[in-house]
Amino acid sequence: MIFDSRIDSIFRMALMALPEPLQAYRQFFQKIKSFQDTASVLHWDSEVMMPKNGREYRAKQIADLSQLTHEWSVGSEYRDLIKNAKKVLNELPAHERSSWEREFSILEEEQKKLEKLPSEFVAELSQTTNLAHAVWADAKQKSNFSDFAPMLEKIINLSRKQANYIGYTTEPYDALLDSYEKGAKASDIESLFQDLKLELIPIVESAPSFESPFNGPIAREKQEKLCKRIPSILGLMESESRLDSSHHPFSTSLGKMDKRITTRYSEIDPLSSIFGVLHETGHSLYEAGLSMMEEWPTPLTEFCSLGVHESQSRLWENQVGRSKAFWEFIYPILLSDFQLTENDVPFKNLFRYINSTQKSKIRVEADQITYNLHIILRFEIERDLINEKIKVKDLPEIWNAKVKEYLGLEVENDAEGVLQDIHWSMAAFGYFPTYTLGNIFSAQLFSSFEKAHSNYKSNFRINGDFSVLLNWLRNEIHSKGKILDAKELIQSATLEYPNSKYLISYLKNKVQEVLSI
Amino acid sequence: MIFDSRIDSIFRMALMALPEPLQAYRQFFQKIKSFQDTASVLHWDSEVMMPKNGREYRAKQIADLSQLTHEWSVGSEYRDLIKNAKKVLNELPAHERSSWEREFSILEEEQKKLEKLPSEFVAELSQTTNLAHAVWADAKQKSNFSDFAPMLEKIINLSRKQANYIGYTTEPYDALLDSYEKGAKASDIESLFQDLKLELIPIVESAPSFESPFNGPIAREKQEKLCKRIPSILGLMESESRLDSSHHPFSTSLGKMDKRITTRYSEIDPLSSIFGVLHETGHSLYEAGLSMMEEWPTPLTEFCSLGVHESQSRLWENQVGRSKAFWEFIYPILLSDFQLTENDVPFKNLFRYINSTQKSKIRVEADQITYNLHIILRFEIERDLINEKIKVKDLPEIWNAKVKEYLGLEVENDAEGVLQDIHWSMAAFGYFPTYTLGNIFSAQLFSSFEKAHSNYKSNFRINGDFSVLLNWLRNEIHSKGKILDAKELIQSATLEYPNSKYLISYLKNKVQEVLSI
Repeated sequence: MIFDSRIDSIFRMALMALPEPLQAYRQFFQKIKSFQDTASVLHWDSEVMMPKNGREYRAKQIADLSQLTHEWSVGSEYRDLIKNAKKVLNELPAHERSSWEREFSILEEEQKKLEKLPSEFVAELSQTTNLAHAVWADAKQKSNFSDFAPMLEKIINLSRKQANYIGYTTEPYDALLDSYEKGAKASDIESLFQDLKLELIPIVESAPSFESPFNGPIAREKQEKLCKRIPSILGLMESESRLDSSHHPFSTSLGKMDKRITTRYSEIDPLSSIFGVLHETGHSLYEAGLSMMEEWPTPLTEFCSLGVHESQSRLWENQVGRSKAFWEFIYPILLSDFQLTENDVPFKNLFRYINSTQKSKIRVEADQITYNLHIILRFEIERDLINEKIKVKDLPEIWNAKVKEYLGLEVENDAEGVLQDIHWSMAAFGYFPTYTLGNIFSAQLFSSFEKAHSNYKSNFRINGDFSVLLNWLRNEIHSKGKILDAKELIQSATLEYPNSKYLISYLKNKVQEVLSI
Repeated sequence: MIFDSRIDSIFRMALMALPEPLQAYRQFFQKIKSFQDTASVLHWDSEVMMPKNGREYRAKQIADLSQLTHEWSVGSEYRDLIKNAKKVLNELPAHERSSWEREFSILEEEQKKLEKLPSEFVAELSQTTNLAHAVWADAKQKSNFSDFAPMLEKIINLSRKQANYIGYTTEPYDALLDSYEKGAKASDIESLFQDLKLELIPIVESAPSFESPFNGPIAREKQEKLCKRIPSILGLMESESRLDSSHHPFSTSLGKMDKRITTRYSEIDPLSSIFGVLHETGHSLYEAGLSMMEEWPTPLTEFCSLGVHESQSRLWENQVGRSKAFWEFIYPILLSDFQLTENDVPFKNLFRYINSTQKSKIRVEADQITYNLHIILRFEIERDLINEKIKVKDLPEIWNAKVKEYLGLEVENDAEGVLQDIHWSMAAFGYFPTYTLGNIFSAQLFSSFEKAHSNYKSNFRINGDFSVLLNWLRNEIHSKGKILDAKELIQSATLEYPNSKYLISYLKNKVQEVLSI
C-alpha cells in the first residue's frame, strides 16, 4: 500500500530511529501542530469562503480549538513528555544534542509565556477578535470609526491585560512586541525608525511620481489570469497551493503541502492585485521551504521571526517584483492577458509607474519608499495606545495629524484613515514594526544574493527562471527554520548584523534607475 | 455589545435556565459538536478547494479530530456528566422530562455502540477511507477496477471488523445498516425491495424515453448562473449557504448558519447540474430547519435518519423539481441564462426530457423510476460483500451481470460500472438502501402536503414561491429533529406508516402526465 507507507514516512518513520521518550514527545508536538493547522483552515475559510451568517458559530469553533491547543501546550502531560525526553539527550551523539537542546529551550520559553495566559483569557481574546472582524469591516464600509471604537477599546483592554499577564520591564508594549519579534524592544525600534525617518526625507524628495500607464479599467478576469500564473513562475507548486481573493490579502500554511494565498482586485488599479500576489507568494515560498526541512514538523521547522517572514515577502515583492529583469519577462505576458499592445502601455511607462513614489493615504497601496513612513506612524500610535498615552476616541484626530506631518496628505474619512487596516481588530499590537524590519532584512539579503550570483538577471529576464534565487533563499534562510534567531540568521546569510544601509542604498539606486530609464 | 450577547444567546443563555448538571452536560455535548463540525469543514475543503498534495496531511488532521471526538464521546468525563444530569431530571416539570429522557436514551445507545469501537480502529478507518478517496478517483479516471481493488478489500475487511465490534443477531450487514437507518434489518429491506421490483417492471415498460431538447453544449458559466439562483428560490438563505463544484455532488452543514452544497457541471448534459443543486438544496433545507430548533445543538436537533434526510432531497428534486408548476416558473429564467429561445428548447420537449425514462448505467444520472433498480442492485451486492458471499475480485463481473438483468444494459468499462460511486471508498456500507427509503418517504409526504394545500401550484408556477411547502416541511419534519424515530415521524406527518403505494402512484401519474402533455 503505497499510500499507507507514505503517511508512515511523514508521521512515524522519521521518529522511529529516535529513543522512545523523544518519539513520544514529538508525537504530542505533532498532534498540537495538526490542531493548530486545523484552526488555520477554519480561519482561511472564514476569510475566503464562508457565508456571512456563519461567523458567529465559527468564532466558537476557533475559540474551542484555540483553548484546547493552549491547554495541551501548557498541560502536565506535555511537560512530563518534555522532561522525560530531555533525560535521554545524553544518549545521543554530541552533534545531534545541541539541536535538541535548542528545540527544548525554545519550547520551554514559549511554554512559560503561554502558561501566564489563563485558557479562558485566550478563548475570550480569540472570540472577541473573531467577532471584531465583522464590526471593523462594517465600520470601514460605512467609514465610521465610532462604530468600531467600543470594540477596539475592548481589544486594547484585553491586550493590556495580556501584557500584564506576560510581564515586562520597561513598558507594556514590549510584552506584545516580543510575541512577533522575539527579544525586540520598543525603545530600540524607536531609535532605528528615527534614523530611517531622517534618511528617507531626502530620498522621498528626489523620487519621481508617475501616472498610471493604463488608460482604462482592466477586467478582474484578465487580472486573475495573470495573477494565477505568478506563484508557479516564482517556484510555488500548483499542486501544493491555491490563490483566492479576500478583503485583505493574506497567506497561510494549512499543512505540509497546502499553502494558500489571497489577493484583492481593483479594476482601476490592476497592479495592486499583482503585487498582492508577489508579496503573499514570498510568504508562502518561505513556508513551503520550511515544510521541506527533513524533520518537519518540529519546533525548529517554524519560521524564525515575523521580521524574517516579512523579508521573504518584501524580497519577492520589491527586489524581484519591481526589478527591470522581472518586468522584461512578465511584460509580454501581461500585454497578452490584459489584451493590450505595447502602444497601449509602453514598457518605460509601466516600469516607471511600478517604481513611482506616490504619497498615498493607504498603506497597502504605498510605494516601497513611503511605506516605511506608514509603519513608523502606526508603531508610534499603537505603542502610545497600549502604554495609555492616548485615548481610543482621539484616534482619528491623532492619525490624521501624523499623516499630514509625515506624508503631507489630508485624510478625508475614517475608511482611508484609521480604519484602513485589519490588524488592530485582530489585537495584533506589535505586528506593524516587523514590516519595516522585513524591508531592512530583504534589502540586505538581496544584496548578498547579488554578490554571489552576479549574472542572475539573464535567468530572470530571458527564461523567467527564478530558481537560482529561490535555491539561495532555501539554503540561507528557509532550511534554517528557527535554528538561529533573526539576528544570527541575517548574519549567517550576509556576514553582517542587520542594518539599514542596504535598504537606503537600494532605494537610492532605484530612484536613479527610474530617472535614467 | 450586540455580538457578544448574540453569542451568549446561542451558547449560554439557552442553558442558563437549566439546573447546573444539565448545563454542564450540554456544554460538553456542544464542545463535541463544535469539533465534529470542524471535521466537516476540513472534509468540505478537501473535496472542494484543497490543492492535490494536501491530501496526506489532511488525512492526519481529520483522523486526529475523529479520534479526539470519539474519545470524548465514550470517555468517563462525559459519562459522569450524563449520570449527574439524569439525577436532576425529577426536578423538572413532567412535560419537559420526557424530552430529556429521550435525549439521554439516544445518547446512551450511541455511546454503547461507540465504545465498542476502539479509538485506534476509528482512526485507522478514517485514515484509510481518506486515502482511499484519491485511489478510487484515480482508478475511476483510468477506468481500472484492479487499481482500486486492494484498497476496497482493505475497507471491506475493516467494515467486517466494525460489524463484529458492534455485534449483530442475523448477519454482519445489519450491524452496518443500523448506523444509517436505526433499527432497519437487511431481511426487511430485502422484502420491501422485492415488492418494489415487481411493481416497477410494468411502470418502466410504459414509461416513455425522450431525446435531450438541447441542440448543443451549454457553457458551464451559463449553468452556474442558473444553478446559483435555485437554492435561494427554494428558501435557502444566501447569507447562510454557498454553492461550489466537486467531483461528486454533496451537501454538508458546517455550523448553525453555514450550509454548503456542491454540484458538478456537464456541458453536454446541462440539466444534471441543476438536478444536483435541487437534490443537495433539499438536504440543506432540512439541515437549516434543524438548526432553527430552539435548543440547537442538542442530540434531539440532529436529523432523524438517513432515509428521512434523503426524503427531503428527493422531494425537492423529484416531487418539486420535476413538476410542471416548478418548470413553468423556471423555464423563462433558464432560457435567459442559457441565452436560448422558446424555439431552441420548446417547453414541452424540456418537460418531457426532465421526466424521461432513459435506462442509464450511471446511478446519479438515472431517472426517478429506474433509480430504484440501481439501489436494489447495490444493496444486494454490498450485502453479499459484507456477508462474505462474494469476492472483491469478482465484483466487475457480478455488477455487470446485474445491470444487464435489471436494466438490460451492457457495462463497457469500470468507470461506468462498479467504480462509478464514491460510497464504498468511504466504507459507507448500508448507506445505499436509504436512497430508496427516501423515495418512498418523499412520495408519501408530498401526497399529504398536497391534501393540506390543494392550491399550492399557483404559488409555485406564478410567483416562484415555495414557502408554503417549506413551512409545511418545517412544521411536520424539520422541527421534530430526532424527537421521533423515522417510522413515527412519517406516521405523525402523513397519518400512515411508511409504505410504497404513494411512490408507485406518483410514478404512474407521472408517466400519464408526460404522455398527455
